[in-house]
Amino acid sequence: MKFTAEQIAEVLNGKVEGSKDVEVHTLSKIEEGNYGSLSFLANPKYTPYIYDTQASIVIVNDDFQATKALKCTLIRVKDAYSAFSQLLNMYNQVKLDKSGISSQAAISETAKIGENVYIGEFVIIGDNAVIGNNAKIYPQTFIGENCKIGENTTFFPGVKIYSDCNVGKDCTFHAGVVIGSDGFGFAPQAANNYKKVAQIGNVIIEDDVEIGANTTIDRATLGSTIIRKGVKLDNLIQIAHNVEIGENTVMAAQSGVSGSTKIGKNCMIGGQVGMTGHISIGDNVKIGAQAGIMSNVKDGQTIIGSPAIEVGAFMKSSVYFKKLPELAKKIYEIEKKLQEG
Amino acid sequence: MKFTAEQIAEVLNGKVEGSKDVEVHTLSKIEEGNYGSLSFLANPKYTPYIYDTQASIVIVNDDFQATKALKCTLIRVKDAYSAFSQLLNMYNQVKLDKSGISSQAAISETAKIGENVYIGEFVIIGDNAVIGNNAKIYPQTFIGENCKIGENTTFFPGVKIYSDCNVGKDCTFHAGVVIGSDGFGFAPQAANNYKKVAQIGNVIIEDDVEIGANTTIDRATLGSTIIRKGVKLDNLIQIAHNVEIGENTVMAAQSGVSGSTKIGKNCMIGGQVGMTGHISIGDNVKIGAQAGIMSNVKDGQTIIGSPAIEVGAFMKSSVYFKKLPELAKKIYEIEKKLQEG
Amino acid sequence: MKFTAEQIAEVLNGKVEGSKDVEVHTLSKIEEGNYGSLSFLANPKYTPYIYDTQASIVIVNDDFQATKALKCTLIRVKDAYSAFSQLLNMYNQVKLDKSGISSQAAISETAKIGENVYIGEFVIIGDNAVIGNNAKIYPQTFIGENCKIGENTTFFPGVKIYSDCNVGKDCTFHAGVVIGSDGFGFAPQAANNYKKVAQIGNVIIEDDVEIGANTTIDRATLGSTIIRKGVKLDNLIQIAHNVEIGENTVMAAQSGVSGSTKIGKNCMIGGQVGMTGHISIGDNVKIGAQAGIMSNVKDGQTIIGSPAIEVGAFMKSSVYFKKLPELAKKIYEIEKKLQEG
Repeated sequence: MKFTAEQIAEVLNGKVEGSKDVEVHTLSKIEEGNYGSLSFLANPKYTPYIYDTQASIVIVNDDFQATKALKCTLIRVKDAYSAFSQLLNMYNQVKLDKSGISSQAAISETAKIGENVYIGEFVIIGDNAVIGNNAKIYPQTFIGENCKIGENTTFFPGVKIYSDCNVGKDCTFHAGVVIGSDGFGFAPQAANNYKKVAQIGNVIIEDDVEIGANTTIDRATLGSTIIRKGVKLDNLIQIAHNVEIGENTVMAAQSGVSGSTKIGKNCMIGGQVGMTGHISIGDNVKIGAQAGIMSNVKDGQTIIGSPAIEVGAFMKSSVYFKKLPELAKKIYEIEKKLQEG
Repeated sequence: MKFTAEQIAEVLNGKVEGSKDVEVHTLSKIEEGNYGSLSFLANPKYTPYIYDTQASIVIVNDDFQATKALKCTLIRVKDAYSAFSQLLNMYNQVKLDKSGISSQAAISETAKIGENVYIGEFVIIGDNAVIGNNAKIYPQTFIGENCKIGENTTFFPGVKIYSDCNVGKDCTFHAGVVIGSDGFGFAPQAANNYKKVAQIGNVIIEDDVEIGANTTIDRATLGSTIIRKGVKLDNLIQIAHNVEIGENTVMAAQSGVSGSTKIGKNCMIGGQVGMTGHISIGDNVKIGAQAGIMSNVKDGQTIIGSPAIEVGAFMKSSVYFKKLPELAKKIYEIEKKLQEG
Repeated sequence: MKFTAEQIAEVLNGKVEGSKDVEVHTLSKIEEGNYGSLSFLANPKYTPYIYDTQASIVIVNDDFQATKALKCTLIRVKDAYSAFSQLLNMYNQVKLDKSGISSQAAISETAKIGENVYIGEFVIIGDNAVIGNNAKIYPQTFIGENCKIGENTTFFPGVKIYSDCNVGKDCTFHAGVVIGSDGFGFAPQAANNYKKVAQIGNVIIEDDVEIGANTTIDRATLGSTIIRKGVKLDNLIQIAHNVEIGENTVMAAQSGVSGSTKIGKNCMIGGQVGMTGHISIGDNVKIGAQAGIMSNVKDGQTIIGSPAIEVGAFMKSSVYFKKLPELAKKIYEIEKKLQEG
């Protein structure tokens, strides 16, 4: 696909400055622009790059004033960053616009498949599963019996959804995501061994949730593990049985939440955070990377450390942790001095 | 499937109080009960729910005495929790009772497949592999050459077992588990680069082991990485080459064990714990979440922290960590006072 | 395959001492040797084992002098460890020498497949993908559109490579690796929800890179996430969008690198390390396990802790962390004494 400056300006409601006919076929950063690429300038820090960029077209804000000669064609818009984001999304939509159902997929006769669905090779769709309109199921994905998958949801290759789980509309799950594996529940026995506690609940994932590659979400023992709408989970995260994560909470890679813990809405949780089980995290909580959360957290707190404390206190204490040998020396000296009298 | 109160009471050796003919088709928590569900009451904390629950049947202990009118039918048994667990297991067994070998699986002619085995679509079974009776191999699983898989073992979708590995009886591996990938062994070379050390050992997993989704266990350089019987590993755990984990040890999600470390039996290891290589952890050891283990641990110790120390000491020191700025201030003040004399 | 002592000595340019005709069919550690296995003795610590080993042949250094009777045949070489490694590699090469293209793979007509390539069952090769000579693509792997895979590269079962990614020569990716999943980028919206930022960049992996099981590497927002030649990544690692990792850097399991961080060459990074985004790590840096890196790190530093500090300082401070209750007690006592005057 190639587009001229004029065509792009029309889409963005912008104004061309330079050649209207110059063509681009890809998008790039301004500092990595090549012949045939379109870039943008929004952050003034990057202004020097515009005079040397090899990009054929650069989108700029209306008020941009060049102080040197430019080689590229400009498209002036109200907000260069937004306009570029709009093009990114269009590019991605075209690129990911797959459809058709592979004859090499194994689809149960009792499954209900919506309109305009893509189902790739070597996919399994189990008995009584329901796949919404415009869903995109990439190759090698497994969707168990009785699962319901909403409209416009995309599963990249190799996603595994165990039976009886529900996924909402407009979700994106990346490769290797596992939904509905058994919760980690074992009852200790007299002989020091363990007996499995059957996990017969499910996982409910609401609309507009994105889940990163190889993240795992266990099914509930009874009832449901619940991921509310708008939640964003990064790669390699572990969500245990009966956890609930509130609306629009985001969690960075490699964090883990133990069984039955409830997390509020609009929280921001860093990478490699661990939470113990059966606790409650409020709304609007911010948790720093690698924190260890061992008890309830109130609305709006910002915490870090293991065990986690208020972020300012942690930072101050960390400074003194570094000085501990020096402080200890002072204490021993004072003690000696006082004893010597 | 639907069952009457009378039928369930017979299975549980219990006594019906209320309608013998009321039917249920699912199991629920008492606080989430619906028409047609069966629930239980064991913990007195939940007693208030029994008067309002929508569940059609509730299993209670023999000595339960209602203090208000009940809408549900009761089944009285000796131990309500055990009885309910028994039903959970029966429910799960029926649900997971799959059999038959898919014509869309790729099974080597030299593989030996037991009786009553389930093999799903797009499964690979390599040359000379042996699959025990009643094993259940879900779709998209890979079992390499010369692997031996024991009776009654279940692999959920997308498990990958490299060649020459042995798995015992009554094991359950969840989706995305990888067994037998190469250990991380590289010999430094003069040019600052590394040469791979071939990893030609295998992984041996004994009976009654459960392994969580996307957990990885590397093959030994030489010899075997060994997981003893009754071990339970949660999701996203990393077990390196030549590690050995003793009987009935349980490990929570996202923990990692480095090469050649030996862990004893009956240990309880929290989530996100890390262990360095070539160390030895005793029997009956308890390790708190996020601990970092850098040296040998004796039988029966309970430790936490990074580097890990005895749990009581860690908790006390953590309290003072929080007070470090205050303590430092006191030291500086005392020092000043003494200097001023 | 069986080989005589004489045949092996010829390959290794060594000298047989004992029976030239004794045969071996496998390799073992000296302490686990069996009839028919070949072992080696390099570390003097293991010398006592040579007198009792059941191994049929043991490779020793030229200058080894037996002080007791030996049951095994010896092969004397200049460097026993190197000679054994050479045999390990040969063993592995023979074992992994697969070829042929499965009729059960789904290969696009527009893909270009090199000479002597192995492609297993249920593999997907997308449109315009290019697979180099001698590449080995194990079953259930997904290679998206426009990907380029270099010569002699091996993908074990279930690797997932999203579209437009490039992988160099002589690479090895283990089962469950995900390359090119979307970076974790979301723009906050007025209603407290998030809008996805399209991720249209790719991942570039240079030559001689090894990547462990279930590790995930996200594609760049724009441009490329780059893994330079000779890098070795262990299992379950997370590499975020637009990260760059320098030549010959090695990283242990379960570490994570946040977006846009640049890591230098020849670094050694322990397990479960976390790095924040948009920072720069120098060359020859060593980072201890579980460290949390929150700011730039200069060339050649050795750091540990969360937040990370110089390793010696961390170890000293950790000793005093353990003594914090005792130190605090001293401070309170001194304070009291001074007040009492």
